[in-house]
Amino acid sequence: MTPPLAIDGKRLLQRLDDFARIGATPAGGVNRQALSAEDRASRRLLAELALARGFRVFQDPMANLFIRREGRFPEKPPFVIGSHLDSQPTGGRFDGALGTLSAFEVMESFEDAGIKTDLPLEVVAWTNEEGSRFAPGTMGSMAFAAAKIPDAWSELRGHDGAPFVEELKTTLEALPEAEMRPLGFPISGYIELHIEQAPTLERENIPIGIVQGIQGTRWLEVTMTGQAAHAGTTALAFRRDPMAAAVAALEPLFKQVMPGDPRARFTVGRFAVEPGSVNAIPGSVTFTIDLRHPETTVIDALEGRIRHACERAASAAGCQSALKQIFDMPPAIFSKDLLACLDRAAASLGLETRPMLSGAFHDALFVNRVAPAVMIFVPCRDGLSHNEAEYVEPEQSITGARMLLAATMEAMASGD
Amino acid sequence: MTPPLAIDGKRLLQRLDDFARIGATPAGGVNRQALSAEDRASRRLLAELALARGFRVFQDPMANLFIRREGRFPEKPPFVIGSHLDSQPTGGRFDGALGTLSAFEVMESFEDAGIKTDLPLEVVAWTNEEGSRFAPGTMGSMAFAAAKIPDAWSELRGHDGAPFVEELKTTLEALPEAEMRPLGFPISGYIELHIEQAPTLERENIPIGIVQGIQGTRWLEVTMTGQAAHAGTTALAFRRDPMAAAVAALEPLFKQVMPGDPRARFTVGRFAVEPGSVNAIPGSVTFTIDLRHPETTVIDALEGRIRHACERAASAAGCQSALKQIFDMPPAIFSKDLLACLDRAAASLGLETRPMLSGAFHDALFVNRVAPAVMIFVPCRDGLSHNEAEYVEPEQSITGARMLLAATMEAMASGD
Repeated sequence: MTPPLAIDGKRLLQRLDDFARIGATPAGGVNRQALSAEDRASRRLLAELALARGFRVFQDPMANLFIRREGRFPEKPPFVIGSHLDSQPTGGRFDGALGTLSAFEVMESFEDAGIKTDLPLEVVAWTNEEGSRFAPGTMGSMAFAAAKIPDAWSELRGHDGAPFVEELKTTLEALPEAEMRPLGFPISGYIELHIEQAPTLERENIPIGIVQGIQGTRWLEVTMTGQAAHAGTTALAFRRDPMAAAVAALEPLFKQVMPGDPRARFTVGRFAVEPGSVNAIPGSVTFTIDLRHPETTVIDALEGRIRHACERAASAAGCQSALKQIFDMPPAIFSKDLLACLDRAAASLGLETRPMLSGAFHDALFVNRVAPAVMIFVPCRDGLSHNEAEYVEPEQSITGARMLLAATMEAMASGD
Repeated sequence: MTPPLAIDGKRLLQRLDDFARIGATPAGGVNRQALSAEDRASRRLLAELALARGFRVFQDPMANLFIRREGRFPEKPPFVIGSHLDSQPTGGRFDGALGTLSAFEVMESFEDAGIKTDLPLEVVAWTNEEGSRFAPGTMGSMAFAAAKIPDAWSELRGHDGAPFVEELKTTLEALPEAEMRPLGFPISGYIELHIEQAPTLERENIPIGIVQGIQGTRWLEVTMTGQAAHAGTTALAFRRDPMAAAVAALEPLFKQVMPGDPRARFTVGRFAVEPGSVNAIPGSVTFTIDLRHPETTVIDALEGRIRHACERAASAAGCQSALKQIFDMPPAIFSKDLLACLDRAAASLGLETRPMLSGAFHDALFVNRVAPAVMIFVPCRDGLSHNEAEYVEPEQSITGARMLLAATMEAMASGD
């Protein structure tokens, strides 16, 4: 007498509460930064839950944590579902945890219902998605997709001064129950459930977002150099003012880039002035532009336009402009087959969905480079994330897990 | 057999060299910050030169240093000439020193020629004109004009942590030869010779600038507040971006304020962004505006225009704008009578002159509040000042001192 295949909503909500206690902050959020004691405690809890159900537990050299439920064909690449367990320093309870614990709930549902699958099913918790203690973010999935830990990371230190290599080693050693496996083994597909981190689903009152891809991100740093001079004694004709040039370059960009293309994102997040005295015309200004779009060709075109605007404005002010890329992440287009599975799964559940793009990075971006991948979004209140006030209605969390279960069944049934 | 009344150019240049050795920097400038050991050494040297010539030396509670050559009517307010001896940390040899040592040269010229004057003549070296170690600048003349040391200064510390009160006391005690006198005694007039600190005289090849006044300066601080949000996930409709608002407000101001009025100065010298992450829409930006004009009514009108532009741009971006004055120095209009003396003096010497306004503050600004005051400018190379490369041609220094001598004679002859 096995129960029918279904999400146990009460169990899922209880798990969310249990994990939210690890690194809980007074304001109701969590501080469970990558490779910290709190991160280790959450990994231990998940591993113990898995071992208690008879699942095998693995970790790779990046401390990516895998839980495996065997399939009829153990030699076939597993189908993988999951997310991450680390958080921002003042993060929320759902970012990462919802996807990881929903994936584990899906695995338990299969187990509860005694369902055999052809493919092995694995739940993953990727290491350091957030990148707030050790930069960059998505280190675990990045190294997994490259099947290699970049050499540069051996020198890495956290913002708290902790050496990355030592914290990684301590984390690995803290879970001796886990079997070691190499980085970057073959997988047959990947589905990640995550909160939207933006307000679209909530505003449109749609429970499920079907994520078609992740927009590309390019970070530019522009330095404009002029001549520092006395604010009082220097007439306009003698000024070479990079602040005036920066403002002249940015004004039309703010006015045109995003209003001209609703899929574009244009953000100036840093702006530094030298020497930075009230009564000194700056000698130089340096600012960053975070540029995003689903199409690389558009990002390239926007970069050209920005470069041109900066050079022209600088030249008009007697200044120089230098622009460099400091980060470039091409867009990800998710698997058509898996998107079709998601559509079928939603139809089978009678759930309204919305196709959408992710504005933020996710581990799925890197997994998508080595296997078919896709993401499911659920709404979060006010679109708020990276914030202790982050909140998802219990019913929405359960709906997300139901969607993940149905999608996983569709994918594993249709898969190789 | 007394020599004729004339500047001893060789002596003046030697003095400039002697004082430039006190706090000399390897790059050829001086570091003689207010109330430092170097400042004290320069005050001691000037006092010793004065005492050696039989002049009396005084200091007031602000350590303003006065050298007095007695007149026929000792009870009458003295006529005062001078400038300051302190420098920027990487300052030049002429800023302040040229005016102070030329004034002493004028006094020695009178003494050499055995000329009796009705009024006592005094040379002054004001304390802390630069304001680089202890802010604000022009502390000595400010307190002199107010006949009071502001209470707030008792808590003041230098950028090196030194308590102002203790450094002032040590400086006063380091010159026990000086007689103490109260702050803010009556004076009959004031002439200050200074380098232009801008390139106008040099470019027009005119040896003497006759300074009609000092433009007013007002410092504004604008804070625009929006909503910090994720650069990737936040669509334009959901943005409240204070960076976009600041750029929209500043662009027309840069384009209109100075081009529209050649006497206006508009400088954005500081610009801070919170939280200052590449991938975060700022929650707030704060910038300063240094606004200068010879007419207070125009400064008022410009402030109104800036406030309006900021509020309108902030409102259009869903942000708030708050503007406050953080400093306000009304314009100074120098004495018509002393300006006429300067014109006559230049005519008597056959010197070409140019009427001009000072863009920078000077001690004359405060002295002008309690007595007729005026300034003489000489050219400096490339208009460069507050810089170790600051340079004045020897001939131009001597011409400046000759002009100061002639102007002082005119003023003391025409005076009460």
